[in-house]
Amino acid sequence: MEFSSKLLENAVYHMSQLPGIGKRTALRLVLHLLHQPVEQTSDLSRSLLALREEIKFCSNCHNISDVALCQICANPKREQDVVCVVEDIRDVMAIENTGQYIGLYHVLGGKISPMEGIGPQDLTISSLISKVGQNQIKELIFALSSTMEGDTTNFYIYKQLKPYDIKISTIARGISVGDELEYADEVTLGRSILNRIPFEGSLKAT
Amino acid sequence: MEFSSKLLENAVYHMSQLPGIGKRTALRLVLHLLHQPVEQTSDLSRSLLALREEIKFCSNCHNISDVALCQICANPKREQDVVCVVEDIRDVMAIENTGQYIGLYHVLGGKISPMEGIGPQDLTISSLISKVGQNQIKELIFALSSTMEGDTTNFYIYKQLKPYDIKISTIARGISVGDELEYADEVTLGRSILNRIPFEGSLKAT
Repeated sequence: MEFSSKLLENAVYHMSQLPGIGKRTALRLVLHLLHQPVEQTSDLSRSLLALREEIKFCSNCHNISDVALCQICANPKREQDVVCVVEDIRDVMAIENTGQYIGLYHVLGGKISPMEGIGPQDLTISSLISKVGQNQIKELIFALSSTMEGDTTNFYIYKQLKPYDIKISTIARGISVGDELEYADEVTLGRSILNRIPFEGSLKAT
Repeated sequence: MEFSSKLLENAVYHMSQLPGIGKRTALRLVLHLLHQPVEQTSDLSRSLLALREEIKFCSNCHNISDVALCQICANPKREQDVVCVVEDIRDVMAIENTGQYIGLYHVLGGKISPMEGIGPQDLTISSLISKVGQNQIKELIFALSSTMEGDTTNFYIYKQLKPYDIKISTIARGISVGDELEYADEVTLGRSILNRIPFEGSLKAT
């Protein structure tokens, strides 16, 4: 694409660096901003820069937070010794939305992925191990996505925690509530049979 | 969506003001920026703001341009008295890419749309009329999209130009090159028969 303006070319280039946004979409977004009041662009610019430069993380669970100890960790009503291990803030928000969980979280900040050059030292795993070492945690719940990277990360943490007396569980995998069996993938359906639960237990959740 | 950080909420809110970007996508984009070096965010912010605040338009064709007279208008090799009327810079780029046009452009900056509150005075129509009035233009080519708004705008300009002795044409509508007739919509196919051209003329373009 050849642009008639260096300013426009620059803006489109930087916008197209975002994931899933190609040059055409970037041009559409940038032209949209040109038709809006200048405040919209300055608000967007300022809020992005403020977030990136002033971002803070909770000292306990490493979730994004404006204060040193996030609302969830600081809440005395939550079970302090049950910790759910998640990848990022989106997972925390998804689980919080269910209203079914009253423990704390530990946000890893990613998954171990040799392909993307992300090793255990890039995540907050050592902080998790030290919390376990200080006997702060009774049960750990793995809630990473069940991909190759998620399974690797789960297994790595599991191995690191072998010496400690701690209960480790993982969220249930199975057929989604409301889904038809015939459309479920084989692996999920197979696992849901292997990991079947007592019928009485299944009544609790509803 | 409830956010654990006001900074994050702000950034997601302003990102989701862009067209076609919902809250979830905005969150994904913003979290991506958090994982990248701070330079990526500052480059993006700066380039957007610079574009919005320093944007200039060509004094002749009203296309986005860093200089007072854009490269196309300033090019003496182009036909100065043939002007193609388009909606925005994307159309200029699309036509330039064909390499088939050596005239100038006139960028309207939108289409007349009562629904969106865009009237003739919001576009650069008066500047076009005055160019015609000064005998600068021999032929005008309408290249707006053939929607209700595009047709309205074409007709409005056509009526305004009635008093002047000027050739007005519109780009050909028809079956796309390489398309199967059976899949073409009826209106396009109908028009392509009504507006059929001499076979010899069709050989020129290839």
